[in-house]
Amino acid sequence: MTVTQDERRNGVDTATLFATLDAVKGQHEIAKFQFRASNNWVNGVHSRSKFAGFYGAMQELEHQHVTEVESDHPAVLVGQDEAPTPVEYLLHAIAACLTAGIANIASARGVTLTKVTSSVEGDIDLLGVLGLSDGAVRNGYEQIKVNFHIEGDADEETLRAIVEQSRRRSAVYDALTNPTPVVVSVSTS
Amino acid sequence: MTVTQDERRNGVDTATLFATLDAVKGQHEIAKFQFRASNNWVNGVHSRSKFAGFYGAMQELEHQHVTEVESDHPAVLVGQDEAPTPVEYLLHAIAACLTAGIANIASARGVTLTKVTSSVEGDIDLLGVLGLSDGAVRNGYEQIKVNFHIEGDADEETLRAIVEQSRRRSAVYDALTNPTPVVVSVSTS
Repeated sequence: MTVTQDERRNGVDTATLFATLDAVKGQHEIAKFQFRASNNWVNGVHSRSKFAGFYGAMQELEHQHVTEVESDHPAVLVGQDEAPTPVEYLLHAIAACLTAGIANIASARGVTLTKVTSSVEGDIDLLGVLGLSDGAVRNGYEQIKVNFHIEGDADEETLRAIVEQSRRRSAVYDALTNPTPVVVSVSTS
Repeated sequence: MTVTQDERRNGVDTATLFATLDAVKGQHEIAKFQFRASNNWVNGVHSRSKFAGFYGAMQELEHQHVTEVESDHPAVLVGQDEAPTPVEYLLHAIAACLTAGIANIASARGVTLTKVTSSVEGDIDLLGVLGLSDGAVRNGYEQIKVNFHIEGDADEETLRAIVEQSRRRSAVYDALTNPTPVVVSVSTS
């Protein structure tokens, strides 16, 4: 079978995408994933994480490449500004998750995209983190705004519906807008 | 004034940290920040974000370096595996945020750290994202576990209290465990 234009629309292998959906329908266990990161403190508020392996599709898997990312605080927040702050990575996560969904959903709906860009803004009042608000100001973002610009061979209504469906199905959108349990444990020796 | 050992404990400039707290106490406006990312779709579910500027301390600021990060899906999720998934960046964000807090709080409390490492696991059932659960399975992580290992010149109780205080003050912990409003807007031309 030759791969046709339709099967790789937007670079998405829709035939495999639909086959994957069918496989998961037949065996729900395939859909259980565990993603992982390991982090090492470097110095000051600078630390580095690695992404290597994960569990999914009923097996231990490794990414093709190990990726390292770093965080620090800017000078104005008493860091060395070696890397973006931890909270900035949340902005990448929401943009990248919605964009991936847009590409998959557009492809499934037969829409060829020519451009998808987004800018993300997260407003945060550090009175919370600094412990100066008596609990009146939250620690995290007060609001995150994601502004998409999307172009493709479909009308505006169709393009907007693709973004909306991506929002409804987004793992990161859910993780941010609804409570996600986070358990912190500690060993000291 | 010479920088002494105490003032740079753990690589944290505690004198400037306390001065920053005092400055913010005197003028709350200093604490209002806006972090930003811009994302470009590459191909398939692969996209790339840039972190460059942000607003804070009553001015527009630029990071010392522009940082680019990428996301993709692994082959088993019909991607090219060029980069970690969007949800993996949430795991870096929580580890890095808690680690930065640990370094700051330990320094403020006069504790010298020798090691801070963490491993993070996020369990996710993709039946939600794939639209195969009739809404019974959420899109995001069912649970995130952060396992810290911390060593320093303090007893176990003191080290555990530092991690706990970091958790209480963490921006990313709050962003994940409590609802964060996310507004998505779209332009098409």
